[in-house]
Amino acid sequence: MPSTTSHSPEPGRPRLDSATAAVRLGVRQSLNECSDGAVVLVCVSGGADSMALAAATVFEAKPRSIRVHSITVDHGLQRGSDAVAQRTANALKRWGIEAHLERVQVVDAGGPEAAARQARYRAIDATAQRVGAELVLLGHTLDDQAETVLLGLARGSGAGSLKAMAPLNGRYARPLLGVRRQQTRDSCAARGIDVWDDPQNDDGSFARVRVRNLVLPVLEEQLGPGIAEALARTAEQAREDDDAFEQMIEEFIEEVCEPAEAGIAVEVSALAHNPAALRNRLIRYVAAAEFGVSLSRTHTLAIAALVTEWRGQGPIHVPGIVVSRSDGRLVFTAAEKAHSRSGT
Amino acid sequence: MPSTTSHSPEPGRPRLDSATAAVRLGVRQSLNECSDGAVVLVCVSGGADSMALAAATVFEAKPRSIRVHSITVDHGLQRGSDAVAQRTANALKRWGIEAHLERVQVVDAGGPEAAARQARYRAIDATAQRVGAELVLLGHTLDDQAETVLLGLARGSGAGSLKAMAPLNGRYARPLLGVRRQQTRDSCAARGIDVWDDPQNDDGSFARVRVRNLVLPVLEEQLGPGIAEALARTAEQAREDDDAFEQMIEEFIEEVCEPAEAGIAVEVSALAHNPAALRNRLIRYVAAAEFGVSLSRTHTLAIAALVTEWRGQGPIHVPGIVVSRSDGRLVFTAAEKAHSRSGT
Repeated sequence: MPSTTSHSPEPGRPRLDSATAAVRLGVRQSLNECSDGAVVLVCVSGGADSMALAAATVFEAKPRSIRVHSITVDHGLQRGSDAVAQRTANALKRWGIEAHLERVQVVDAGGPEAAARQARYRAIDATAQRVGAELVLLGHTLDDQAETVLLGLARGSGAGSLKAMAPLNGRYARPLLGVRRQQTRDSCAARGIDVWDDPQNDDGSFARVRVRNLVLPVLEEQLGPGIAEALARTAEQAREDDDAFEQMIEEFIEEVCEPAEAGIAVEVSALAHNPAALRNRLIRYVAAAEFGVSLSRTHTLAIAALVTEWRGQGPIHVPGIVVSRSDGRLVFTAAEKAHSRSGT
Repeated sequence: MPSTTSHSPEPGRPRLDSATAAVRLGVRQSLNECSDGAVVLVCVSGGADSMALAAATVFEAKPRSIRVHSITVDHGLQRGSDAVAQRTANALKRWGIEAHLERVQVVDAGGPEAAARQARYRAIDATAQRVGAELVLLGHTLDDQAETVLLGLARGSGAGSLKAMAPLNGRYARPLLGVRRQQTRDSCAARGIDVWDDPQNDDGSFARVRVRNLVLPVLEEQLGPGIAEALARTAEQAREDDDAFEQMIEEFIEEVCEPAEAGIAVEVSALAHNPAALRNRLIRYVAAAEFGVSLSRTHTLAIAALVTEWRGQGPIHVPGIVVSRSDGRLVFTAAEKAHSRSGT
């Protein structure tokens, strides 16, 4: 097993540093998801997290004959970004990685962060497809996960947002969700790997950057060290909870829903006999799946009240949907355009 | 309905301030939990939150012939606490409340906060019993709830700690969980009610005080206003989720457990076929109910691995419990004392 070799000192070399050991452990566990001899694609910006990830992937891939490709995306948003991407790709090639460099066009829709992410994932997807990658490895660390939990907390939409990023989602894997960002820096330093510090990481106009530089340090100072780990554990448990409810809904959604005039009907009894956690998720599920509407908590509860506090009240208007109760069913119909504009 | 009278201007008096309206709405909804003519007990420290609560309770109780008692607990921990308690009780009596003043002895075990809380709830329970209270009203506000969520988040133990305080738990009700602390102050100010500022509210040796004075303001500044409300919504949803899982466990715990030699056995198949959220809670439930042990996430997952990653491994030792797998069952037995001390 590679675990033995990676933990014991290599002959004639200093003992493996603990940061690199942690990074390799994460990668090894993720690589269990793919077959020997497979192709994996590592996403590398050139920062410490993704450079440590790439180096560990090369190391762990070898005994399993896994072929390592990388993709470095140049968003073209900063002066000199092409040089950074090129330098990164060159370093990766020297390690024996098949390095791909993709220049993308960022169309700013829904904020610069969202637009850059969209363009990046499109390029990654296309490359993964082209090289036949079984697994795509992303360098998000435990610190990124903790930041995502705090950003989700600020939305106040429950387990659905607290679950943050998935360790494994389709072919996308995040081997470093249990590794601290500092460990990726330490690992690169210990192995003499040059890294690039993205100046955007200090741009306070991004909520994530403010969480990283201003919020988390205060939490750590006031509530004790270990807060990042606690947030990451919260994400894990929220993901388990949310997954369980999603599975339950998938199991019975077909039974309790049926098409109705210009919409869909759900049995009141099914909603009434399930706990609130499931009832409210079912209502949100129907709104999202049938009408593409993401219901707020207030709107969800207003619809649920047709079940839990029924006293003959009239239809509930929420953006895009009208919900009424009749004949033991909740009937969801698309609101007329005029309605949805004047809606609650 | 009292809502009409309480929202419309009273003749010859200024229009009702919105803060008092919000406090009264919360109280009115809680009082729906008790019958007309019942006795309710309001817990009053003398701070703005509990004074606003008491005043609103008197107002809302009247049309329903509900009799209002109050309890003010003197913990005897601060110089002059007896005078504060007496002054508070006197004010309540002037409003027509049957005011009880209880002096308690705080035995410092598990920290001064925990000890004071225990002593207080013992006194409240005894008084509720004596006066035959159907409902006990506590003055916790939305801000207290938000603080509790952040403290729970720092523990990292999932929905179980994020659910924070219950709006209704047995006969204990918290009418002000939807009301901001500032609204209770505004309500008291608008109605000329004298309030007492507990100096402990500024004592930075309490984690809760640091969350209130240092953490929440930073979150609000960096993530935008509305963070307290978002945290309170998180609590609501975490409570729904946790309640749903508790209900599921209650429904099937009897079927899947049976007594074993010096412990209890749980069917592996029941654990394997349920989602992780339920499996891990079931393991924690058995440890708590049978052995009085509160399992950490790490220990819970180590035990779950006997189900999910079974490769014939030996028994798992966690503090106070040994868990082994045999004949398709997980057998939980009490660890010998020596074991539990040297345990993981």
